[in-house]
Amino acid sequence: MTDDRTATTPEHTDTPALRDLRAHLERLDVPDVVHELGRLGPTRRAVAFRLLRKDRAVEVFEDLDPALQVELVDALAGEAAAIFDALDPDDRAALLDELPAGVARRLLSGLSAAERAATTALLGHPEESAGRRMSPEVVSVPLGTTVADTIARVRAAGEDAETVYVVPVVAAGRRVVGVVSLRRLVLSDPSALVDDVMTSPATTVRVTDPAERAANVVRDGGFVGVPVVDAEDRLVGVLTVDDAMRVLEAEDDEDSARTGGSEPLRRPYLSVSVLGLVRSRVVWLLLLIVAATLTVGVQSFYEAELSQVVALALFVPLLIGTGGNAGSQAATTVVRASAVGDVRPSDTLRVVGREMLTGLLLGVTLATVGVGPAILVAGPQIGLVLALTVVAVCTLATTVGSSVPLLAKRVGIDPAIVSAPFISTFVDTTGLVVYFTIAKAVLGI
Amino acid sequence: MTDDRTATTPEHTDTPALRDLRAHLERLDVPDVVHELGRLGPTRRAVAFRLLRKDRAVEVFEDLDPALQVELVDALAGEAAAIFDALDPDDRAALLDELPAGVARRLLSGLSAAERAATTALLGHPEESAGRRMSPEVVSVPLGTTVADTIARVRAAGEDAETVYVVPVVAAGRRVVGVVSLRRLVLSDPSALVDDVMTSPATTVRVTDPAERAANVVRDGGFVGVPVVDAEDRLVGVLTVDDAMRVLEAEDDEDSARTGGSEPLRRPYLSVSVLGLVRSRVVWLLLLIVAATLTVGVQSFYEAELSQVVALALFVPLLIGTGGNAGSQAATTVVRASAVGDVRPSDTLRVVGREMLTGLLLGVTLATVGVGPAILVAGPQIGLVLALTVVAVCTLATTVGSSVPLLAKRVGIDPAIVSAPFISTFVDTTGLVVYFTIAKAVLGI
Repeated sequence: MTDDRTATTPEHTDTPALRDLRAHLERLDVPDVVHELGRLGPTRRAVAFRLLRKDRAVEVFEDLDPALQVELVDALAGEAAAIFDALDPDDRAALLDELPAGVARRLLSGLSAAERAATTALLGHPEESAGRRMSPEVVSVPLGTTVADTIARVRAAGEDAETVYVVPVVAAGRRVVGVVSLRRLVLSDPSALVDDVMTSPATTVRVTDPAERAANVVRDGGFVGVPVVDAEDRLVGVLTVDDAMRVLEAEDDEDSARTGGSEPLRRPYLSVSVLGLVRSRVVWLLLLIVAATLTVGVQSFYEAELSQVVALALFVPLLIGTGGNAGSQAATTVVRASAVGDVRPSDTLRVVGREMLTGLLLGVTLATVGVGPAILVAGPQIGLVLALTVVAVCTLATTVGSSVPLLAKRVGIDPAIVSAPFISTFVDTTGLVVYFTIAKAVLGI
Repeated sequence: MTDDRTATTPEHTDTPALRDLRAHLERLDVPDVVHELGRLGPTRRAVAFRLLRKDRAVEVFEDLDPALQVELVDALAGEAAAIFDALDPDDRAALLDELPAGVARRLLSGLSAAERAATTALLGHPEESAGRRMSPEVVSVPLGTTVADTIARVRAAGEDAETVYVVPVVAAGRRVVGVVSLRRLVLSDPSALVDDVMTSPATTVRVTDPAERAANVVRDGGFVGVPVVDAEDRLVGVLTVDDAMRVLEAEDDEDSARTGGSEPLRRPYLSVSVLGLVRSRVVWLLLLIVAATLTVGVQSFYEAELSQVVALALFVPLLIGTGGNAGSQAATTVVRASAVGDVRPSDTLRVVGREMLTGLLLGVTLATVGVGPAILVAGPQIGLVLALTVVAVCTLATTVGSSVPLLAKRVGIDPAIVSAPFISTFVDTTGLVVYFTIAKAVLGI
């Protein structure tokens, strides 16, 4: 891999093909360049990246997935230091998390003392916390400052502050007592005091809050940014709306992957090798197969009944498919409602009760609609078995599908992990037991 | 329903319980009030809403799901007009979409001529387009304006403009030639021309672009807002970051619901009745059951083989479960990659090729790991049948799971509709055919 890369990353950027590529990249917006780089293999990505103008290169680098950033740092070697230096502290901290320790140390040592301090301060907060994702370089003003002086301070901080759209107002000891938006500052009388134009009390998030919850606060409130405070309400940074969007997108990626029964890729799909795809899925499939061997056990237990009434086997895929689908519906709905904050762990009983009733009604509906055809195909006795089984399996599926993710969340497991595929496999096994039990009772076998 | 509501919406807001509720609501942030209202039934929601201070009521109303807004308009009757008047034009247009025509007409007729014009202009754009979700009240300046004059114009527009963070710069005929952020304006020399401080060319979106694509542009670029233009590049509005977040959240809700095999609820989970939950799921379950009856057909076709070798039936749930899981993995990954723009419809062949290979490798891995136990349980011949079937079913599942959503997108169907549950059911049926065909060949039955 490394050999190949060195061989095909030549410096003759004056060939017509490379000139064309450079011109093509120049015409694209930064987000489009990011998308294009995500579609290339590692070698061509490094070549394309070097063709970018210096200032655009930093912007593009900031928006790349962390996994791609690490590969680029590796491929760019010496040149990486300059890009690292130009990043904002929060982006730098995120990258350091992903880099091998040796590379991380080398890059950190190349920073100025102030930049290094801003970066390592972020690294002191737990991973996945709001503190890791905030911007520590923030303009704030004490109570009693005039609007004109506040604007002057914003101007003085200028390019160094990552965000100036939200200016926290602080009392003694940097305690946040309000915020004033840049919009409000511009619209207000310059001689007014921030005390009179600020929003107070300010919505804040704790530096130790999970990044996802903090990001939800920004989204739900429609804020441009929210001050991040420590346990004593002292200002430590600002979580901006674009940081929040990035956190939420990563969470959505994770939830979506796990709902489908695989590990998140954490990088653009086309930049993942086929072996990488296999790796993200094979453990899940193996676990689910191990769980599914229970279905083999259940069916061998009822092998005598099966060989007596082979017709029973005909409906197994339909029944467990229906159970799996009803369970997926419940699980996906509840996982999503929980992710956006509509449902809290304390709602577990209420939710499971609703879902149980929903499953019962779904089962009765399906049984009523399906009982006619089933009797025509399989006769009245097996028809009755099927109808009863559908009702039982649907109720079981929605109950399990809603309770397991919520219980998982209560004990601190990502609810998406125990969603659709897990529920299906569980419902397959228990559904078969229900099916054969009902069949034995009704058919008298 | 209506009787019940009238009976329990009394005006005596001076009872101790209501005073407590009012005090409780006063202490909450707007987003928390929105969450709390989403958890109440319609009657109590209307009571709680009336307890809010007027200015907060409008903010809360803006952030409610459209379905809850409609119920409130109904419950508030006469008072609704005042709230409707205080909404921004884009929020007003979104609400009008949901209201019965009579109510919509009545509310529209109560507006001033200017407000009515701003609202109906939005309604002229197709649903789900960027034009429907943008803010039409935007401050723009012509080329040649100084920074000081631009700020003066922002101040003059003041509260009327929904967004002042992004100021489009226009040439003759309102053609957008650049944008300047409020941040840049504040940081720049007041006597400079916007021509020299603006970002040009500006990233814009078309008024007819799908709202989701436009919102992705805002998110991917980390913009506070993006100018919306018509076919001649003339300014018609700005899509702000909070509008974009709302669009993307609704899309994520939709994708998530459909991935799980149900229709999106479009309102907070706890505010949906059990019958509402049944309604969002029953049609999907019925469709999937109809599709699954094919599995009954396939198995009855092979009934002779099944009764000859009942052991074959034992492994059916495991095999189709594995196929379903492998298919879900592929479908979910591809649907998500397509939603965030990592994969385009033109990548279909490349993606399907990768997924086919991934499925083959997954199948070979599972068969290798599983062949020992399978031989122990079922003997060498059925062991061979199982191993071959796992390879074939995994390859089939990833191929179908990746190609069907992408083909759906090509013909304009939401790829999430044909994802996991649809793929599972399809793979169930074809997987059974593969299984019995291999079994007949190997076992010579």
